[in-house]
Amino acid sequence: MPEETTERDRLTVPQGLAALSLDALASVAYGPEAIVLVLAVAGSHGLGFTLPVTIAITVLLAALTFSYRQVIAAFPNGGGAYAVAKAHLGRRVSLVAAASLIIDYVLNVAVSVSAGVAALTSAFPSLYPDRVVLCVVVLALITAVNLYGVAESAKVLIPPTVIFVVAIYTVIVIGLLRPHPVTAPTHVGAATQSVGLLLLLKAFASGCAALTGVEAIANAVPTFRTPRVQRAQHTEIALGALLGSMLIGLSVLIGRFHVAPNPTKTVLAQLTDASLGHNAGFYVVQFATVALLALAANTSFGGMPVLTSLLARDHHVPHVFALRADRQVYRHGVLVLAGAALVLLVGARGDTQALVPVFAIGVFIGFTISQVGMVRHWRLERGPGWRGRAVLNGLGAVLTAAATVIELIAKFGEGGWLVFLAVAVLVTLFESIHRSYARIGRALHIGEVPGPPVQEHSLVVVPVGAVNRLTQEALGTALSLGDEVRAVTVVHPEEEGAPDADAMLEAWQRWHPDVPLTVLSSRSRSLTRPIVDHLQELAAAKEHDRLVVLIPEMHLPHPWQRLLQNQRGVILDRAIRQHTDAVICRLRFRIEVPR
Amino acid sequence: MPEETTERDRLTVPQGLAALSLDALASVAYGPEAIVLVLAVAGSHGLGFTLPVTIAITVLLAALTFSYRQVIAAFPNGGGAYAVAKAHLGRRVSLVAAASLIIDYVLNVAVSVSAGVAALTSAFPSLYPDRVVLCVVVLALITAVNLYGVAESAKVLIPPTVIFVVAIYTVIVIGLLRPHPVTAPTHVGAATQSVGLLLLLKAFASGCAALTGVEAIANAVPTFRTPRVQRAQHTEIALGALLGSMLIGLSVLIGRFHVAPNPTKTVLAQLTDASLGHNAGFYVVQFATVALLALAANTSFGGMPVLTSLLARDHHVPHVFALRADRQVYRHGVLVLAGAALVLLVGARGDTQALVPVFAIGVFIGFTISQVGMVRHWRLERGPGWRGRAVLNGLGAVLTAAATVIELIAKFGEGGWLVFLAVAVLVTLFESIHRSYARIGRALHIGEVPGPPVQEHSLVVVPVGAVNRLTQEALGTALSLGDEVRAVTVVHPEEEGAPDADAMLEAWQRWHPDVPLTVLSSRSRSLTRPIVDHLQELAAAKEHDRLVVLIPEMHLPHPWQRLLQNQRGVILDRAIRQHTDAVICRLRFRIEVPR
Repeated sequence: MPEETTERDRLTVPQGLAALSLDALASVAYGPEAIVLVLAVAGSHGLGFTLPVTIAITVLLAALTFSYRQVIAAFPNGGGAYAVAKAHLGRRVSLVAAASLIIDYVLNVAVSVSAGVAALTSAFPSLYPDRVVLCVVVLALITAVNLYGVAESAKVLIPPTVIFVVAIYTVIVIGLLRPHPVTAPTHVGAATQSVGLLLLLKAFASGCAALTGVEAIANAVPTFRTPRVQRAQHTEIALGALLGSMLIGLSVLIGRFHVAPNPTKTVLAQLTDASLGHNAGFYVVQFATVALLALAANTSFGGMPVLTSLLARDHHVPHVFALRADRQVYRHGVLVLAGAALVLLVGARGDTQALVPVFAIGVFIGFTISQVGMVRHWRLERGPGWRGRAVLNGLGAVLTAAATVIELIAKFGEGGWLVFLAVAVLVTLFESIHRSYARIGRALHIGEVPGPPVQEHSLVVVPVGAVNRLTQEALGTALSLGDEVRAVTVVHPEEEGAPDADAMLEAWQRWHPDVPLTVLSSRSRSLTRPIVDHLQELAAAKEHDRLVVLIPEMHLPHPWQRLLQNQRGVILDRAIRQHTDAVICRLRFRIEVPR
Repeated sequence: MPEETTERDRLTVPQGLAALSLDALASVAYGPEAIVLVLAVAGSHGLGFTLPVTIAITVLLAALTFSYRQVIAAFPNGGGAYAVAKAHLGRRVSLVAAASLIIDYVLNVAVSVSAGVAALTSAFPSLYPDRVVLCVVVLALITAVNLYGVAESAKVLIPPTVIFVVAIYTVIVIGLLRPHPVTAPTHVGAATQSVGLLLLLKAFASGCAALTGVEAIANAVPTFRTPRVQRAQHTEIALGALLGSMLIGLSVLIGRFHVAPNPTKTVLAQLTDASLGHNAGFYVVQFATVALLALAANTSFGGMPVLTSLLARDHHVPHVFALRADRQVYRHGVLVLAGAALVLLVGARGDTQALVPVFAIGVFIGFTISQVGMVRHWRLERGPGWRGRAVLNGLGAVLTAAATVIELIAKFGEGGWLVFLAVAVLVTLFESIHRSYARIGRALHIGEVPGPPVQEHSLVVVPVGAVNRLTQEALGTALSLGDEVRAVTVVHPEEEGAPDADAMLEAWQRWHPDVPLTVLSSRSRSLTRPIVDHLQELAAAKEHDRLVVLIPEMHLPHPWQRLLQNQRGVILDRAIRQHTDAVICRLRFRIEVPR
C-alpha cells in the first residue's frame, strides 16, 4: 500500500471488481473443467449433468453473495474469516480459519499458475512437455515482483479484467448463436461408471473451486471510496452476477459442443475453438486467460503476507512475519507462500486438475466459519431486523457447511485428508508457538514493571592490529565509553612474515596512549581463538560488571576498495558472539582514500 | 599443518618423495601421451620420434634436478620462485613468478583431475560420456577435504606412491620382457603432416608437462628432518632418477607396442593392457593412477593458499587471503583455486590433452626465473666454488628459457597466448592492489605515531520495543557506557494491532528509568527508516562527539526457539551501518526459557 492513502486512491466499484474479484472471475478457467472431468467417467450420459451441477453451484454462489453483502455491512473494517472468528468464535476456531485461509492462498497460487500455463500450452501445444518448467518460471516471476514490492494500482488491473470478461461473454454469445455444433461430438470413451449420487456430489464438490475468491471483497472494505459499505456491497453483487452468468453460459456451451476433457487442451480452449473457430480470436482469449490467471495468483501474495503478519502480532507465527524490511514487504510471508506453492506445483507436475479437487475444501471451511460467526454477531447485536439477517447468514452457514461435508466425503481419498491434516498441523503449530511466546514473555517479566536500570563498572576491550589512525580512533571511542579500556593484539611467532610481539610493544611504547596492551602469543594460527580465550578469562575473573568488545574496522568509500579489507571484524564478531556474553560494538571508521 | 611440529613429524627421504613429489611422478600419466598426440599427426613415422623427444626432455630433467639441488642448499628456508625472485630480481619479476605459479597450481588441479578421470574411464569405458560430471565431483571432493582442513600426514601418502611407482615399473619391465608385441600395430590414420622441426618442438613442448612439480622439494626444505638440506637434496635426486627412468621406459614401450592416441583410452592404459594383459593387474594400475592423480591435484591445495597468503602479506592480493578461519585453513585461497580449476575443467570438457599443452608454459617461466635468480645469488655471495654453481644454474636458466621460448612459439596459437595474457593480467592486478594498499596506508598514517586517543562526550541511543527485562538490561548497559543515554521507539499509528504511542509512554512513566524516551511516529511501516532519520538528526545537531547505538536482543537457549525471534537486530544493524557513522553495539541478553 502506498505510504499515504488519500480518498482518490481508494476503490470505485469497477476498480474494486478488478482489484478484488479477478481471483474469483479467473476461476471460470478451471471450475467448469473440474466438473466435466468428474462427470466424464460416466461417459456422455454423465456429461449431460454438467448444467444441473453448475446450476446447483450457482445457487450456492447466490447464497454466498448475499451473505457476504451482510458481512460487509457488519465488519466495515474488513471481515476476513480470521477476524470474524476471533471476534465471535474464540481463538481456537479463528486458528482453524487462519489455517484454512493459508492453505487456500497457497492452493490459489498453485492452481492459478498451473491453469495459466495450461491456457498457454492449449494455444501452443509444443510447450506442453515443458509445462512444469513453465510453472516454475511463472511462479518465480510473480514472487520476484512481490519481493520487489511494486505498489499495485487497481487501475492497471482494469484492462485485463475487462478484456477477459468481454472475451468469455463473446465466446458464450457466439457459441449460443451458432445453429449447429461445428465440431462432431467428441468420443468420450466408454462409461466406466453410471451416474450415481456420489458422482454428482463429487462433480459439485470439484466445481465449487469456481467459488473461491468471492470472500475477498468483504476482507477489504476499508480500501473502498466512501460510501465504503455501499460500494463494496455493489461490487459483491456485481461479482456474483458476472461469475454466475459466466458459469451457466459456459456449461450450456459444454453440453452444446459435446466437450470432453483433454489433458493437452483445456475445456475453455475447446469451447473457444468451437465457438470462435481457430483464429486470432482464439489466441486473444487464451492470452487474456493467461494474464488473468497470473494476476489471480498475485492476489494471494497480497493477502497471505497480511494474514501471517496479523498472526505474528497475535504470537501465533514467528514475529519475523510481522517485520517489513526496507521495501515495505512482509518478505517472510511472500517466501513461505512461494515455497509452498512451488512444492505443490512440482508435486502435481503442473496438472491443475490434480490440485483443484482439494482447493475448494479449505475455502469452504473458511466460508462456514465466517457465516457461523455472523449469526453469532447478529444475535449479540440485535439491531433492527437482526433476525432476517441472522437467518440469511444461517442459511449461508448451512449451505457452506453442507458443501464442506460433501467435499470432505467426496474428496477425502483424493487429497481431502491432506487438507484436513494440514489444518490440524497448522493449528497445532500456531498453538505451540503461542505457548512458547507466553513462556518467553514470562521470562522477560512482560507486564510487570522491571527494576531500575543500573549503571555499573564497564571494561572495554579493543582488539588492535597495529598502531595507526584506526587504532587511535578505536581507543578514543573506547575511552569515551568504558570506565576502563584495554587493548589486545594477537601475534603468531611461528608464522613467517607476520608482525612480532616486540615490534608491536615497541610501537605501543612510542605511542604511549595510556591504555595497556596485552599481547597474546599463539602457536595456533587462529585469530579468534586467543581473543575468545582471553575474554572468557576476563569474564571469569569477574573484576568488571559489563564486558564490552569494541571491534574497529575501516570503511572505504569505493565498493571495489572494500574487497581489499580483511574480514577480521566479521570473523571476530561471530566467534565472540558464539562463545561469550560480551557486548560487541563495531566501529566503522570512514577514511577517504583516493582511487 | 599441525599446531606443534616436532622433529619426529618432519620428513625423511621416502616421506619427502611421497609428500612433495607425487605431483611430479603422477605426470607420467599424461606426459608421454602429450608427446604421442603431437607426433601422431605425422603418422607412424612421426610416432617413431617418441623416444628421441623423451630423451631430450630427460636431459632437461637432469639439468633441472641438479639446479634445484643447488637451490636447496642456497635457500634452506624454502626457495620458491617467488621467494628467490623477490630476494634477487626485484618485485616486478617476483610478481611474474607468482602469477605463473598461480596459473600452474590451477592447471595442475585441472590436469590431474581430468587425467585421473581419464584413467577411470579407460578402465570403465561406460563412464566416458559422464567424464565432465565425474571431473566436477572429484574436484568438489578434493575441495571439501581441503576446506575442512585435514591435517595431512606424509605417512598416509607413502603407500599409494609406492604402489603407483611399483606398478609403472612392473608395466615397463614385463612389457620389455615380452618377445613380440601382443597387439597388432594400431592403425594411426594417414599422416597429415611430415616430421618437421616445428612438430618435434611441439612434441617437446607438450611433453615438458611431465616435468611439472620437480621444483616442489626446493620450496619445502624446512619440512624435512635434520640434516634438512642433505635429505632434501637426496630426495630431489631420487625424484629425478625415478621420473626420468619411468619416462624413458614408457616411451620405449610406446614404440614397441605401436601405441597411438585414443580419446577413450589413455596411452598409459593401452601400455598396461599390452604389457600385463587385460586382467586384474590392469585394474590395479588404473586405480593406482586415479588415486595418485587425485593426490597430485591435492598438492596444489597445499601450495597455492600458502603462496596467496604470502602475496597478501606483501599487499599484492586482498588481505583476506592471509586470514585463516576457524579451521586453520586459508579458505579464500582454496576457493579461488577450486573455482578457477572448475572453469578450466568444464571449459575443456574434461579433456586432459586440451589442458596439457599450456600447462608447461607457466611452470617453465617459474623455472627460468628461479635459475636466473640463483645465478644472481651465487654472484652476490661468492662463496667457495661459486663459479661452478653459477655455471650450473646458468645452464639450467638457458635450457629452461629455451624450453619456455619453444613452448611459447609452438603453443602460442593453442592457448599459449592465454597463459601470456593471464600472467600479464595477474601482474597488473597485483601491482594495482599494491598501489591501493599504499594509498590506504597513507590515509591511515601508517608508520607515523598517531596523536593520543581522546576521551569525549558520548551519547548512547537504545531502540526499545517495550518495557521489559530486556529493556532494563539494555538501559543498564547503556548507562554504564555512555555519558548520556536516550531510548527511542517507533510506533505505526496506521497499522492495526500495533502498539501505540500513549500506551508506551504511560508504561515508561510508570517505570521512570531516568532515561528519556523519544517516540517516533511513522506513517511508513518501516522500522528502520524513522530510527535512521532520527540518528542522522542527532548526528547533524553535533551536541555529542560520539554517537553510539545499542541494539538489545534476546538470546534464547534452544535453536528452534531462535526461530521465534524477530530479526530486528540484524535489520537495524544493517540499515544504521549503511546510512550513519554511529558505533553499533549489540547486546545479547541470555534468558532461560523452559521448553
